[in-house]
Amino acid sequence: MSSPKIVTAAMVAIGDELLSGRTKDKNIGHLADMMTMVGIDLREVRIVPDEEASIAEAINALRTRYDYIFTSGGIGPTHDDITADAVSKAFGVDCIYDERAMALLAAMYERRGMEFSDARKRMARMPQGSRLIPNPVSTAPGFAIGNVHVMAGVPQVFQAMLDAIMPDLQTGTPLLSQSVRSPYGEGDIGTPLTAVQKNHPETSIGSYPKFDGKVFSTDIVVRARDPQALSAAAADVQAMIDAITASRVKA
Amino acid sequence: MSSPKIVTAAMVAIGDELLSGRTKDKNIGHLADMMTMVGIDLREVRIVPDEEASIAEAINALRTRYDYIFTSGGIGPTHDDITADAVSKAFGVDCIYDERAMALLAAMYERRGMEFSDARKRMARMPQGSRLIPNPVSTAPGFAIGNVHVMAGVPQVFQAMLDAIMPDLQTGTPLLSQSVRSPYGEGDIGTPLTAVQKNHPETSIGSYPKFDGKVFSTDIVVRARDPQALSAAAADVQAMIDAITASRVKA
Repeated sequence: MSSPKIVTAAMVAIGDELLSGRTKDKNIGHLADMMTMVGIDLREVRIVPDEEASIAEAINALRTRYDYIFTSGGIGPTHDDITADAVSKAFGVDCIYDERAMALLAAMYERRGMEFSDARKRMARMPQGSRLIPNPVSTAPGFAIGNVHVMAGVPQVFQAMLDAIMPDLQTGTPLLSQSVRSPYGEGDIGTPLTAVQKNHPETSIGSYPKFDGKVFSTDIVVRARDPQALSAAAADVQAMIDAITASRVKA
Repeated sequence: MSSPKIVTAAMVAIGDELLSGRTKDKNIGHLADMMTMVGIDLREVRIVPDEEASIAEAINALRTRYDYIFTSGGIGPTHDDITADAVSKAFGVDCIYDERAMALLAAMYERRGMEFSDARKRMARMPQGSRLIPNPVSTAPGFAIGNVHVMAGVPQVFQAMLDAIMPDLQTGTPLLSQSVRSPYGEGDIGTPLTAVQKNHPETSIGSYPKFDGKVFSTDIVVRARDPQALSAAAADVQAMIDAITASRVKA
């Protein structure tokens, strides 16, 4: 296999409600699924509160380390929506009322016979020099500056915005995965599985315990970018499990 | 109200499977709920991969900033369980086979007539000087060193370990909350809500849009440590919504 292309990403999920437990995040798992599908490695996620300094610090810590940063939350019309200010601060640029966003919102409220209030105008604020991220659900756009993509926290809107930007993202060689189900717990398979991993250094073998309330079993997941390496390692994992089964039948 | 006691916490959720989307995390939301209940402020969460350096870096970045650090994942018997090594590295101490943990595990496997294999012995490894965290579900203990509490990733075990340590945690003055339901979207309430927030600086008012596929509504959540401040602000939020309703009926 020719050398794989690696593209990396991180996420910053923004919101007091995620840290208080009031809202159970759904965007992290969705982003993870989408990134895996197109071959972008999600390497780190941070959940931070609605505080300008915390958001800016997380974005600046991550944006130089990874190819893409995605954020969720804090871009609505209320006083606690401060992501635009925080990202502007992180990039050291002014937070302005973007003219394109103002026009989109003005037209939408005009059409619906609603007032384009000061609160609603807040949704047009973004760092100077941003690109717009379309919002087919509720018009108010997200924005991107540099490698940072700022999206809404409401899952339907987050997902629609992500769909809108996906075609423009550089993608890498997908990390393929193959699962092997083990009826045995990790304690039974740990030692032989270490040997399989050592024999297949070009793969990454993960072991995920499951507990049904009485008995542990294990999902073993082999990951590799090369399909041949993947199936060779998965076959050895399966052979390892079959060997345990055979030894128990004999005993 | 006498000056409130503030206790802070952060979490490090460890595991490639959380970042690939294979596993949708359940421990973050559970920890958030429990912390809120006892008055500990969860201030930050990081999700990191199964890499020793990434885990150690996250723990060292957070443990000096917050009163408590909680981790999930990576303490099982397989080769990809490296949290004990990473935490040892973060604290600059040896990762040893803890004698108390070895005794607990040896007795349990003896009782069950199972081999205490090298893989299973891995579950007794922890930083030198750790305190044990009991595991009533499956025996293999978690551990705590300094202010860092290392727990399992399997939700049933994570929850049981957290239950075991909760009585020993210092708790703060709980951050109380009161929700006010708004049938109006954030654009309608943004401007008056900003005024309510300004009149109640000792509270934190969050605004959470909900989208049913057609219409946005809003949950407004007032948070405060002082019950009187909380109810005064919540009453003003409700009055603000009633005023919008009255103005629409008139119009």
